Amino acid sequence: MISIKMQEQVKNSSVIRAMFEEGKRLAGIHGVENVYDFSLGNPNVEPPKEVKTAILEVINTGNARGIHGYMNNSGYEDVRAAIAESINDKFATAFTHNNILMTVGAAGGLNVIFKTLLNPKDEVITFAPFFGEYKNYVSNYDGELVIISPNTINFQPNLEEFKEKITPKTKAVIINSPNNPTGVIYSKETIIKLSEILREKQTAFGIDIYLISDEPYRELAYDNAEVPYLSKYYENTIIGYSFSKSLSLPGERIGYLVIPDQVADYENIISAANIANRILGFVNAPSLFQHVVAKCLNAKVDIDTYNRNRELLYQGLSSYGYQCIKPEGAFYMFVKTPIENDVEFCNLAKKKNILLVPGTVFGCPGYVRIAYCIAYYKIQKALPHFKALIEELK
Amino acid sequence: MISIKMQEQVKNSSVIRAMFEEGKRLAGIHGVENVYDFSLGNPNVEPPKEVKTAILEVINTGNARGIHGYMNNSGYEDVRAAIAESINDKFATAFTHNNILMTVGAAGGLNVIFKTLLNPKDEVITFAPFFGEYKNYVSNYDGELVIISPNTINFQPNLEEFKEKITPKTKAVIINSPNNPTGVIYSKETIIKLSEILREKQTAFGIDIYLISDEPYRELAYDNAEVPYLSKYYENTIIGYSFSKSLSLPGERIGYLVIPDQVADYENIISAANIANRILGFVNAPSLFQHVVAKCLNAKVDIDTYNRNRELLYQGLSSYGYQCIKPEGAFYMFVKTPIENDVEFCNLAKKKNILLVPGTVFGCPGYVRIAYCIAYYKIQKALPHFKALIEELK
Repeated sequence: MISIKMQEQVKNSSVIRAMFEEGKRLAGIHGVENVYDFSLGNPNVEPPKEVKTAILEVINTGNARGIHGYMNNSGYEDVRAAIAESINDKFATAFTHNNILMTVGAAGGLNVIFKTLLNPKDEVITFAPFFGEYKNYVSNYDGELVIISPNTINFQPNLEEFKEKITPKTKAVIINSPNNPTGVIYSKETIIKLSEILREKQTAFGIDIYLISDEPYRELAYDNAEVPYLSKYYENTIIGYSFSKSLSLPGERIGYLVIPDQVADYENIISAANIANRILGFVNAPSLFQHVVAKCLNAKVDIDTYNRNRELLYQGLSSYGYQCIKPEGAFYMFVKTPIENDVEFCNLAKKKNILLVPGTVFGCPGYVRIAYCIAYYKIQKALPHFKALIEELK
Repeated sequence: MISIKMQEQVKNSSVIRAMFEEGKRLAGIHGVENVYDFSLGNPNVEPPKEVKTAILEVINTGNARGIHGYMNNSGYEDVRAAIAESINDKFATAFTHNNILMTVGAAGGLNVIFKTLLNPKDEVITFAPFFGEYKNYVSNYDGELVIISPNTINFQPNLEEFKEKITPKTKAVIINSPNNPTGVIYSKETIIKLSEILREKQTAFGIDIYLISDEPYRELAYDNAEVPYLSKYYENTIIGYSFSKSLSLPGERIGYLVIPDQVADYENIISAANIANRILGFVNAPSLFQHVVAKCLNAKVDIDTYNRNRELLYQGLSSYGYQCIKPEGAFYMFVKTPIENDVEFCNLAKKKNILLVPGTVFGCPGYVRIAYCIAYYKIQKALPHFKALIEELK
C-alpha cells in the first residue's frame, strides 16, 4: 500500500535497522559498558553554556507570542542579519539578511535547494566517499546522483574523473568539507581547480552549474586548519549550514542556506527556496532556536574533547598497522580494512563488540567509518580489541 | 534555472505577495492601527503559562545533550507514550508510542504521510472549501488532488459528489475539521456516512483508501462542540495533529501523526513514515519542544478570547446583512460576498483598509475568509467599515 519508492527504502533500511538491533542485543548480553558503538554521528560533547543562557534570556525577556509565533518563512529578519554579519566578519564577504534563509537543519536546507533546482533526470555530482543521504535527497525530486570514484591517496576529490562526468544535464555539484566520512578538508588548491573546471564546463555547455556546499562540520577543524569559504572561489555557490555539530544541537533542527546575490537567477532561487521551505512542510525553522543561535554565533562546542579522541584513536590504530588518514576535521576516521571486504570486516569487528559502518555505504568499499564522538574511556577500552582484530587477520 | 514546478509556484505566489505588500503599504500610509488585517491565521492569543514553565523545567533539570540531541527519528519514546496515553484518556482509544510519530508541525506530518503513500498520478480527494496547501503537498509527490465542490448550505462535505468521484486511483481522502476556512465542524453523522461510502468503495474496487484527518484546530471548538475522533469511525484513518494553535506555538513546528495498528499495511506505513521523516530533511521533530509539549498535554490557549471575537464579528456582520455561517471552531469566518466576484470584493474591502482572503483560494468562489485571530478592538474598529461596504454595494 505504501508507494513504490518507499517500498525500496523500507527494504534497504532493514539492513541498517538490523545493525542497530544487533548493537542493542550485544549491549543486553555484555552490558552497555562493553559495547563500542562507533556507528553514529551523534555529538557526545555538551552544548556550550551560551546555549542555555540564550534560551533563558529569550524566554525571560521576549514576548511569548513573538518568540513562538509565525514569521516570514525565511526566518526572522534580525536573526538573518546577525548571521550575515557574522559570516562577513569571518570571511570578508558582504551578505545581508536577503542572502540567508533559515532552515530545519542542513538536511532541511539541502531538500529545499534540491526542490528549488531539480527537474526530473537532472544530474547532481558528488565525490565518493559521500554522505549516503545525498542519494535520497536528490531522488526525492527525481534527480540522479552521479558519483565520482574515490581518490584513496588523500581523499581529495578526483578531479580528472569529475571533468569527464559533467554533462549538459549537470545541474549541481554537492560537496561536504570537513568530510563525512573521511574527516578530510578539501584544500584551497582543490577548490580553485574544481571551480576552474566548473566555469569551463558552464561556458562549454552554456549552462549554470550550482556548487552546493554542505557544511555541518565547518567549525570542527583541528590545528586551526582553514576551511575555504566557497562563495569566494566560485560564483554559483550555495551554502548549507547547520548548528547541529557546532553547538551540539542536532535534535533542534536549526541551520540556514546562504544564497549569494551573485548566483545565476538569484531572484527566482530565493523566491522558490522560500516557497519550497513552506510547501515541503517545514514552513519555517523552529522559532525559539532562531533567536537562540543568533545569540550564540561566537560560541562553539569544546573541540578539544574530539581532538583528544582523534589523537588516541589515530595513534592507536596506526601503531597496530591500520592504514588511516588523520582527520583534519569532523569526528570521523576512515580506515582501510585489513581484508578487502569491508562488510565482512564489520561483522568480524562486531564479534568483538565493536560497531562500525562499512565504507560501501559511502560509495567507498574496502574502508570503514569510525565515528569517534564517544567517551574517551570507551576508545581506550576498544583499542586492544582493534589490535586483536588486525592480528587475527594477518 | 529553477525547476519547472517551482517556476509555476513563483508565478502564483507573486499574487499573494502583492497582497502582503499592499497591507504593508496601507499600514505605511494610514498607520498600523488603521489597517484591519484579517488575512492571516496567526494566533493572537498568548501560549498558556504552562509552556514557559515546561521549558524552564526541561532546561533546568534535564541533561543538555539529552534535551537537544538526536533521538529515534520518530521522536522520544516517553513523549510518544505520554501523547498516546492522553489521547486514550480523552477518546477511549488504545494507542501506544508505536502509533505516534512526532513531526515538524502538521504540515510536516502531512508531507511525510503523502510521501509514504503516493505514487505518481494517485488521487487524493478533498472537499471544497479546503486549505490551499493540500494542492502543493499532494503535488510534491506527483499525486493529483481531486476537489469535491462545496455544499454551501451548511459546508458539511458534499457526499453525493464524493461517492461519484472515488475511483480505483483514489489513495486517500484528506479532511480538516474544525475547518479552515469555514470554522465548521464535520458532524458525527457526516463522518459515519463518509466512512460507509469509503468502506463500500474499498470493497467495490478491492483497494485501501486512507482517510487523513488534518487536526490543527481540534482544541479550538466553541460551546463544548464535539469533534469526532475519526479512527473510531473508520479503520484506515491517519491523524495529523499540531500544537501550533492549541498552545499558540506555530513557529516551533511541533506536531505528530497517529497511525493506528488497524490501518492496512500498518508495519510498512510506520517504517516508511519514519524514513520519509528522515529523508525529506525533517530528521526529527524539534527535540526541546517534544519534551515541552509532553508536559503541556492538558494545557490549552484561552479560547474565550477567540470566542469573544467570534461573537462580535458574527453579530455585527449578520446585523448588516452579510450571510455567514457561525463558526463552531477554529478562528475563521466564511462569509458570502454581497457581489458575485470574491476577488473584486476583496479589492473593494482593501479600499477600506480591510484585508481578506478570497474564497477562490480555497476552491469556493463567492465567499471570503475572515481570520478573526486579531485584537478585539480592531474588529470593533473594522465593523463600521464592513457596514459601509455592504451598504455601498446595495
